[in-house]
Amino acid sequence: MIPLDFTHDPKTRSWIESANDPDSDFPIQNLPFTVFRPQGAGTAFRCGVAIGDQIIDLPMLAQIDGISTSLRTLAKLSASDSLAPIMRLGASGWRILRHDLFRLLTVDSTFKAPLRGCLVDQASAEFALPCVVSDFTDFYTSVHHARKTARALKPGSEPPANFYSMPMAYHGRSSTVRPSGSEVNRPQGQRWDKENDRAVYGPSTRLDYEIELGVLLGIGHKDSTPLPIDKAEQHIFGLCVLNDWSARDFQAWEGRPLGPFLAKNFATTLSPWIVTLDALRPYRCALRRESAPNPVLDYLDSELNSQHGAYPIEIRLALESSTMRKRGIEPQTLARVNFSGGQWTLAQMVTHHTANGCSLRSGDLLGTGTISGPGQHESGCLLELTKNGKEPITLKSGEKRAYVEDGDRVIMQAQCTAVGRRRIGFGTLSDTVVAAKQDHR
Amino acid sequence: MIPLDFTHDPKTRSWIESANDPDSDFPIQNLPFTVFRPQGAGTAFRCGVAIGDQIIDLPMLAQIDGISTSLRTLAKLSASDSLAPIMRLGASGWRILRHDLFRLLTVDSTFKAPLRGCLVDQASAEFALPCVVSDFTDFYTSVHHARKTARALKPGSEPPANFYSMPMAYHGRSSTVRPSGSEVNRPQGQRWDKENDRAVYGPSTRLDYEIELGVLLGIGHKDSTPLPIDKAEQHIFGLCVLNDWSARDFQAWEGRPLGPFLAKNFATTLSPWIVTLDALRPYRCALRRESAPNPVLDYLDSELNSQHGAYPIEIRLALESSTMRKRGIEPQTLARVNFSGGQWTLAQMVTHHTANGCSLRSGDLLGTGTISGPGQHESGCLLELTKNGKEPITLKSGEKRAYVEDGDRVIMQAQCTAVGRRRIGFGTLSDTVVAAKQDHR
Repeated sequence: MIPLDFTHDPKTRSWIESANDPDSDFPIQNLPFTVFRPQGAGTAFRCGVAIGDQIIDLPMLAQIDGISTSLRTLAKLSASDSLAPIMRLGASGWRILRHDLFRLLTVDSTFKAPLRGCLVDQASAEFALPCVVSDFTDFYTSVHHARKTARALKPGSEPPANFYSMPMAYHGRSSTVRPSGSEVNRPQGQRWDKENDRAVYGPSTRLDYEIELGVLLGIGHKDSTPLPIDKAEQHIFGLCVLNDWSARDFQAWEGRPLGPFLAKNFATTLSPWIVTLDALRPYRCALRRESAPNPVLDYLDSELNSQHGAYPIEIRLALESSTMRKRGIEPQTLARVNFSGGQWTLAQMVTHHTANGCSLRSGDLLGTGTISGPGQHESGCLLELTKNGKEPITLKSGEKRAYVEDGDRVIMQAQCTAVGRRRIGFGTLSDTVVAAKQDHR
Repeated sequence: MIPLDFTHDPKTRSWIESANDPDSDFPIQNLPFTVFRPQGAGTAFRCGVAIGDQIIDLPMLAQIDGISTSLRTLAKLSASDSLAPIMRLGASGWRILRHDLFRLLTVDSTFKAPLRGCLVDQASAEFALPCVVSDFTDFYTSVHHARKTARALKPGSEPPANFYSMPMAYHGRSSTVRPSGSEVNRPQGQRWDKENDRAVYGPSTRLDYEIELGVLLGIGHKDSTPLPIDKAEQHIFGLCVLNDWSARDFQAWEGRPLGPFLAKNFATTLSPWIVTLDALRPYRCALRRESAPNPVLDYLDSELNSQHGAYPIEIRLALESSTMRKRGIEPQTLARVNFSGGQWTLAQMVTHHTANGCSLRSGDLLGTGTISGPGQHESGCLLELTKNGKEPITLKSGEKRAYVEDGDRVIMQAQCTAVGRRRIGFGTLSDTVVAAKQDHR
């Protein structure tokens, strides 16, 4: 059994009423971290924690008499535009902060009056990246994504044999990881022009999203030896939603033999909130892994991992075209996927990353890879959903979509739920695609 | 014509006699930067510049009366373990520093006496990385490497069509970029065991080196539009020698479809000196590019680039086994390659990297990709030289080598030469492979 504590009790309510709304992403049991500032106020970014529809402005905690030493330390560490100092505290530090923040927010808290002065409306905030991203590694762990993309490109294909043997990955680009709310310029690049039998340079004609979770490492690893699988999660500060924007036409042309490069590194966007693994503990479950020809190799295997290594996080993706926006049509849900249906767990990804002695650093970002399910409405990208554009979908506005068009807003929301428990939400990742920027030459 | 100035005059001599030795890597015309400290002295790393067999301890310049304002600024910027503040000055700043340092060192310098107190013997120094590496991108630009590796794996193969259309690349890992003098632990990882028809985990059986140059960016780019090709080199602070250590058995198993990951990210090593492009100006030449089916696309093409875009840098690789070391046998040269025989120039690599709006940052490291020539003794890696181990070579000690063995020291040295000019050397990159580290589980 996974040990739980008082912060996981679903009956505990907060004196901040909006947190008790069953539809809130941020009940007192969640307490995710962010970097934010009040919009338009010209003030500096600082660290915060979500509760209901509010943000606790963490540096302000320093002004409250009688709070714990840990929270006083937290206030000091929170006064910059990065969660890095908090991330470096490690799992036991994160837990102490969770416990102390929780106590401030329960209905019987004695800090209600002074804490009111530390609250900022989420609706009036703007958000930054959680920290400077050190290295970004993107995995490939959903068997349904692997199979459906393979078949969209070549009917009857199966995932490659190595997919079943390890959580594969490629290195991504950290300089273009950006916070939610970005305008994503349609990238320009090279693609193969089949008709004219030559390469051409211009705006991508097959711009796609990919539904992923982002995994932010708080603690590095520098031992030259692999991390034991049951210790791997201790290095994870928390999770967010990640959109791995992809230009399929560039990817098809550049992908062999070195993998994705310019097809992916123009933009990777992250949702504002980092949900800790502690908040997700009560939801842990076994992975619904597809049976594989060979057993999992020892270094990737443990009882804890196989029985409780997964998190049933559901991610919903919706698209809103500029026409829909003008005509007041609600964003249209295109996919609902669940992270527990993958082939590999978070712990397996982290351990495999260190299998060769590769060092990890605080601030490293891992992507889970596109998360898909077997069904058509469980497609983590348009390449799957529209069979690489061959079967466009029809939006409620009557417009067709093979791939993402300029003006489209792509929205992702995630939550972790279980019977009898509050929902642990991830907030919203929302970005709008705009036309390719013209160059100056 | 490429404009030259007084710092390129091959007749100018230094009052530091060792710099006038024609066999020195570091004549007064070179002046490469480094981060160093006197060995064993317990002092902090700081920035330096090579001259002959000496290093100018740059922070010490602050103590010299009457030196230029620029050198006084340089002294201040040099007092940390990173070239980053100097790298951010940009091309015009780098040039002013080169001119002023050059004047300090000519035979008619009036600063000889005070400058003597700022010199440290190279032989007594240890070296660090030039800066924290932001993102590491490794290119694939030698047609001979592309062809010879393809044929080593499958006789009769040719480079893929996209190779001729753009300088392809993949993202590498910056956390494991390390300075010369490293002990490289043989990595462990997954490979396919053909005989038993299953994946196994263990030490790599096909550990390889790759001869590359490293390209350190001093100035970033954040415009969302491609860098014009003729401005691309202004972003390059300088070059060094790079060994892209590779585990061929892991690469074969993990490489499809996402490219190299754990096969490459256990170690990437850099030589200590960053040679500026200004020092290399007189040697610029046209690339000896292989004719391609289609013309180079506009954004990658310019007259300057096609006529003067290449640098004839020769890199020599030698191997010394532990037996050779014990028996006093000199390291054995296995390859001599020249960077001007590639398919793509530095400017083309930088511009292509930004073709999709990808941002670059000061501190980014690019690898040129393995540099090879057509001949057998122009093989940039053992995969080429031994035909993937099928044709092992014999060392002077009588030992055979299919791939790198534990105890082997791999040494690379580079230089740029031209008739009537001093040689611009890069110093030495030297690392020793040691046994796989046992894990604790």
